[in-house]
Amino acid sequence: MEGIDYHDGERSKAEFDVEEMKIVWAGSREVLEVSDRMGRLVASDEAFRKDNRTMLSRKDLFKNTLRKAAHAWKRIIELRLSEQEASWLRFYIDEPAFTDLHWGMFVPAIKGQGTDEQQQKWLPLAYKMQIIGCYAQTELGHGSNVQGLETTATFDSQSDEFVIHSPTLTSSKWWPGGLGKVSTHAVVYARLITDGQDHGVHGFIVQLRSLEDHLPLPGITIGDIGMKFGNGGYNSMDNGVLRFDHVRIPRDQMLMRVFQVTREGKCVQSNVPRQLVYGTMVFVRQTIVSDASSALSRAVCIATRYSAVRRQFGSQNGGPETQVIDYKTQQSRLFPLLASAYAFRFVGQWLKWLYTDVTQRLQANDFSTLPEAHACTAGLKSLTTSATADGIEECRKLCGGHGYLCSSGLPELFAVYVPACTYEGDNIVLLLQVARFLMKTVSQLGSGKQPVGTTAYMGRVADLMQCCCAVQKAEDWLNPSVILEAFEARSARMSVACAQNLSKFANSEEGFAELSADLVEAAVAHCQLIVVSKFIEKLEEAIPGKGVKRQLEILCNIYALYLLHNYVGDFLSTGCITPKQASLANEQLRSLYAQARPNAIALVDAFNYTDHYLSSILGCYDGNVYPKLYDAAWKDPVNESVVPDGYQQYIRPMLKQQLRNARL
Amino acid sequence: MEGIDYHDGERSKAEFDVEEMKIVWAGSREVLEVSDRMGRLVASDEAFRKDNRTMLSRKDLFKNTLRKAAHAWKRIIELRLSEQEASWLRFYIDEPAFTDLHWGMFVPAIKGQGTDEQQQKWLPLAYKMQIIGCYAQTELGHGSNVQGLETTATFDSQSDEFVIHSPTLTSSKWWPGGLGKVSTHAVVYARLITDGQDHGVHGFIVQLRSLEDHLPLPGITIGDIGMKFGNGGYNSMDNGVLRFDHVRIPRDQMLMRVFQVTREGKCVQSNVPRQLVYGTMVFVRQTIVSDASSALSRAVCIATRYSAVRRQFGSQNGGPETQVIDYKTQQSRLFPLLASAYAFRFVGQWLKWLYTDVTQRLQANDFSTLPEAHACTAGLKSLTTSATADGIEECRKLCGGHGYLCSSGLPELFAVYVPACTYEGDNIVLLLQVARFLMKTVSQLGSGKQPVGTTAYMGRVADLMQCCCAVQKAEDWLNPSVILEAFEARSARMSVACAQNLSKFANSEEGFAELSADLVEAAVAHCQLIVVSKFIEKLEEAIPGKGVKRQLEILCNIYALYLLHNYVGDFLSTGCITPKQASLANEQLRSLYAQARPNAIALVDAFNYTDHYLSSILGCYDGNVYPKLYDAAWKDPVNESVVPDGYQQYIRPMLKQQLRNARL
Ligand SMILES: Cc1cc2nc3c(=O)[nH]c(=O)nc-3n(C[C@H](O)[C@H](O)[C@H](O)COP(=O)(O)OP(=O)(O)OC[C@H]3O[C@@H](n4cnc5c(N)ncnc54)[C@H](O)[C@@H]3O)c2cc1C
Ligand SMILES: Cc1cc2nc3c(=O)[nH]c(=O)nc-3n(C[C@H](O)[C@H](O)[C@H](O)COP(=O)(O)OP(=O)(O)OC[C@H]3O[C@@H](n4cnc5c(N)ncnc54)[C@H](O)[C@@H]3O)c2cc1C
Repeated sequence: MEGIDYHDGERSKAEFDVEEMKIVWAGSREVLEVSDRMGRLVASDEAFRKDNRTMLSRKDLFKNTLRKAAHAWKRIIELRLSEQEASWLRFYIDEPAFTDLHWGMFVPAIKGQGTDEQQQKWLPLAYKMQIIGCYAQTELGHGSNVQGLETTATFDSQSDEFVIHSPTLTSSKWWPGGLGKVSTHAVVYARLITDGQDHGVHGFIVQLRSLEDHLPLPGITIGDIGMKFGNGGYNSMDNGVLRFDHVRIPRDQMLMRVFQVTREGKCVQSNVPRQLVYGTMVFVRQTIVSDASSALSRAVCIATRYSAVRRQFGSQNGGPETQVIDYKTQQSRLFPLLASAYAFRFVGQWLKWLYTDVTQRLQANDFSTLPEAHACTAGLKSLTTSATADGIEECRKLCGGHGYLCSSGLPELFAVYVPACTYEGDNIVLLLQVARFLMKTVSQLGSGKQPVGTTAYMGRVADLMQCCCAVQKAEDWLNPSVILEAFEARSARMSVACAQNLSKFANSEEGFAELSADLVEAAVAHCQLIVVSKFIEKLEEAIPGKGVKRQLEILCNIYALYLLHNYVGDFLSTGCITPKQASLANEQLRSLYAQARPNAIALVDAFNYTDHYLSSILGCYDGNVYPKLYDAAWKDPVNESVVPDGYQQYIRPMLKQQLRNARL
Repeated sequence: MEGIDYHDGERSKAEFDVEEMKIVWAGSREVLEVSDRMGRLVASDEAFRKDNRTMLSRKDLFKNTLRKAAHAWKRIIELRLSEQEASWLRFYIDEPAFTDLHWGMFVPAIKGQGTDEQQQKWLPLAYKMQIIGCYAQTELGHGSNVQGLETTATFDSQSDEFVIHSPTLTSSKWWPGGLGKVSTHAVVYARLITDGQDHGVHGFIVQLRSLEDHLPLPGITIGDIGMKFGNGGYNSMDNGVLRFDHVRIPRDQMLMRVFQVTREGKCVQSNVPRQLVYGTMVFVRQTIVSDASSALSRAVCIATRYSAVRRQFGSQNGGPETQVIDYKTQQSRLFPLLASAYAFRFVGQWLKWLYTDVTQRLQANDFSTLPEAHACTAGLKSLTTSATADGIEECRKLCGGHGYLCSSGLPELFAVYVPACTYEGDNIVLLLQVARFLMKTVSQLGSGKQPVGTTAYMGRVADLMQCCCAVQKAEDWLNPSVILEAFEARSARMSVACAQNLSKFANSEEGFAELSADLVEAAVAHCQLIVVSKFIEKLEEAIPGKGVKRQLEILCNIYALYLLHNYVGDFLSTGCITPKQASLANEQLRSLYAQARPNAIALVDAFNYTDHYLSSILGCYDGNVYPKLYDAAWKDPVNESVVPDGYQQYIRPMLKQQLRNARL
């Protein structure tokens, strides 16, 4: 059976150039080349094997991650990898590790919040990994409400030091990744106290462990917070707990780019605008959106390939049964997720542009687009991570019973992915921020202030409140401007309705609280519009390659019409479309699924994932699923002996009715 | 802090008699008494501890389960527990084990499909656990399509035996619980072949392992299929793989209640009606629905209690922050799940009645209600398990970051629960069966055949196609008959629309395939109506206890209006309600949440779960969450040493820049 490609037939059906699609997915030929090279490098290196991951005990799993991280660093140095290459390498190693926080949070925090001198001192150490850092914000008692953190940093002007202290149990730092066992340093967020006055929460660089023997420094208690969701999953990460007992650090370890404490203990706002921090936030959220498209596409790749291999029912005269991917119910669950993966990819690419744009404007002291950029990234983070978490689990279900095996790769993918809905802002809390911004935008519409960026459509609110959808037959729904108008009208009308309901409350904060569930729905409608519109914009670019653009058009329409179908209540209740038009959209959707069907395997091939990265038997490239499942089963430790450990003590006495006398 | 009850204030707010509600939840005072006693028995027995479950290796976990099962059996014998008591005991032990399949599938299969003699021979052995059995139906290549199973049972008239054989790799039995390591026997489903003729799939009792040394008998290969979702989860179960190489069993081990093979190899249909098997199916699905209410209520109990402890934002003048349960977004996610748990409980109780009814009718040779009962249980299995799986994960997210810790209990609950969406019928495949039944019902409406049971409302289809919802103000939505009519109209109209669309196809099978996604939606609408109507029927009973009925009315309305809000597109597009009425429903829902709020903690207390059963720090009865989280963290094995294993090899060389020379 070796060497046979069970997807050969499927691949030959594709109506587009897969290699060109790979470039579109990657973002550019260069990125494809680098990521492809790094993907192969990881896949071919035995040291990065991960197929045994779910069978390791926590301790072994953790040690194994330390080994991989060290090996990766060694390879990065030996091969003189660029920053971009190194980051793709870590991506393909595909195991949460302290390095994620070191590179993804510790370094950016110093870059974003440290003064030039602080950057000069700390960044070289961090870049060489002579220190390892983490990001210690969340506490046992406070996550979402950062302003409620309890850790204190009290300035002692006598010694020119800050005293970092955990005054309560709930002030224990709790969750920071890399903290529990590895980090030598942390950016710690604490309330700044000078002269008995509380100046709110600021960041401090604190050394946690000795660089000689790795023991926590005096006054510092650190540990791991214990097992998390999944077998492997996030358990390779040492999310940690940390308490301070009056730990002293020099004054110059407060991150002082924006806010400074002088030698005398005076607090000074620097001339660097506070808004700078938003730049970092836009950056971090952009990576989260891009990670969402990676995670979702991975799950979709597995479910799509397996759905083409799996056959069930429908055999005619002893012929083969139907591939489950041919069932319309399977398509109506799977193809919208395939389309979502592409949609999130493109909105992620657009966010990269937005980040550059925001950064340039910040440098030019132009803050006009910041609130909009902030709301937009908050919303997209929430939308894409929620949809991805749900989508991964749907893909698992689409694989029937076998999706429940760890060897399918899907359980671990879900377990490792879901915290993205919570970290970097709980998704509901973020949507409430979006809603707040939308209400502000609506309230300013009369004042002549033109909404910008992704809220620009609100400027046409008068039109959008009364426009009528022009669809008369199913194909009319293929028109991008028809789709766009329907989504804009729905979003505008939902926001306006919320604003009107809010205005009935004497106290607007009370109103906001009371109507918050509706406000969240309005925020979701707005975010969905952003994703749809960015997909449509993408299609306005020149996209080379035979049939590539055509496929993307199909996916874009699937994404939009699937949303329309799923949220049809919004569209109908706001009168944006009629029931008849809704039913035409559904009809069109069915026909789009039929068009996507022959291209499904090629569309997931375009993600260019190695079997190593997928780590899924059901999703393997050659589709030779059954022998691989069968062989993998025997590797489980419980199969080491035919008669299980415990038989003599527990099973035999039961069968032999000797239990009454047994001691258990 | 010990002894303090952080929920005291919450408990004193309750407006109803919790002890009486416990009885309603349990089903009767007797059941409450038994389940309460068994719950305490398990909780107080050190042997049943489960707080270390997620930290054990697969082998240790599995052995631990064997130990618990043996201990449970010992207690059952020592205490002379009744069947009911024993089954509650197993419930509270709360760990998937081979005994689930032995009692839940093997014994019922013999009871349902065995002749009187077969029952007399095998049941006593099984009741005493002198043999341990499992249910071996699914194969590597076939699950949903049972008629496609490949294992053969060929009758050899010379020796009066069946030869059981696995002709292909994909015919390997795959998934049966208890098979991998423990079972001595199995009910094996195989194609019956006599004289070269295939008579379809039948059940056979096959001994798998020697009762002396537990080794597989000659010709039999057995193993475990490996790790599944979650840390503990279903990994305590030995789901197994099984191959037969021409294994011989005596003829009288074919289960022959309905279909018999004579000594001469003749096949005879017995005079017992084939429909009997449906009785068992109704029974099994009824337990699944009842399990759904248990699992969902458990998650809801955890999330509700924690939401009352967790405070975030909203502190006024240094006062305490807002309990997150007071946020409307939290309520709009949590309270519908609380209401769903109760709704599923009552529909489960009703299914118990349905099972008795069906059994009595079968005995009286009345098969008239069987197809309806079959469709109804299929649909309710699908609806309740899908909603429960999603609901558990939503509860986890409602707990923010801390819900991601295994010590919250929620990750394991999700991992162990989700396969319920797949086993005993994939949920989509089941909904397609419901849809088929609905289409048949609609097509027969003209013929004068009156629809029965849960489809009786279809008899009023003419009215339902044109009725108008009478709601004019928000409170009108509290009227059960208004709710019922809206749900009936929606369901009837969706079914009729599907039937009309189907009639446009020349080939009705092609039409069914093409429209299957719409058909599934119609099936869901029908099933939701069943749950709503059974909840309403429950409220027509006399329910004693101060305020108990009032609370149930609130929950019933929350359940119905939440469904209406979530599926408002169905109601609007079929013209069952107007946008204005939809918005009034939403308004009413908000006010219902406010009414449920003070009773929330008491409503989850009524489930009467012990802290042992919940196994969740976030859900503990006294609400003393933070010290418990803190203390639990330190028990993780990686905390055994302050400096982690691997430091010298992997971390220190990195920090000291000695990696280039290191061998990793
Ligand atoms: C795997 C993982 C890794 C992490 N890594 C780090 C790290 O490296 N460093 C770090 O500092 N932290 C880290 N965290 C912590 C993470 O940032 C927080 O968990 C997150 O911010 C959510 O906060 P919380 O847990 O306090 O949730 P809570 O705020 O307690 O949320 C509980 C519930 O309350 C609701 N809620 C809260 N506030 C409101 C409101 N105002 N209105 C309506 N509803 C509300 C939420 O929607 C949610 O349903 C990590 C967490 C996880 C799970
Ligand atoms: C934890 C667990 C325990 C189990 N225990 C047992 C046991 O004790 N004994 C036993 O015999 N089995 C057991 N099983 C097996 C279980 O019964 C099957 O997995 C289940 O019946 C689903 O079948 P499948 O895996 O073949 O799914 P598939 O049928 O392969 O499903 C794959 C996909 O195809 C779709 N699909 C399939 N047919 C159709 C159709 N006609 N129309 C539209 N879509 C379709 C499904 O909706 C799904 O999305 C267990 C499974 C699990 C996960």
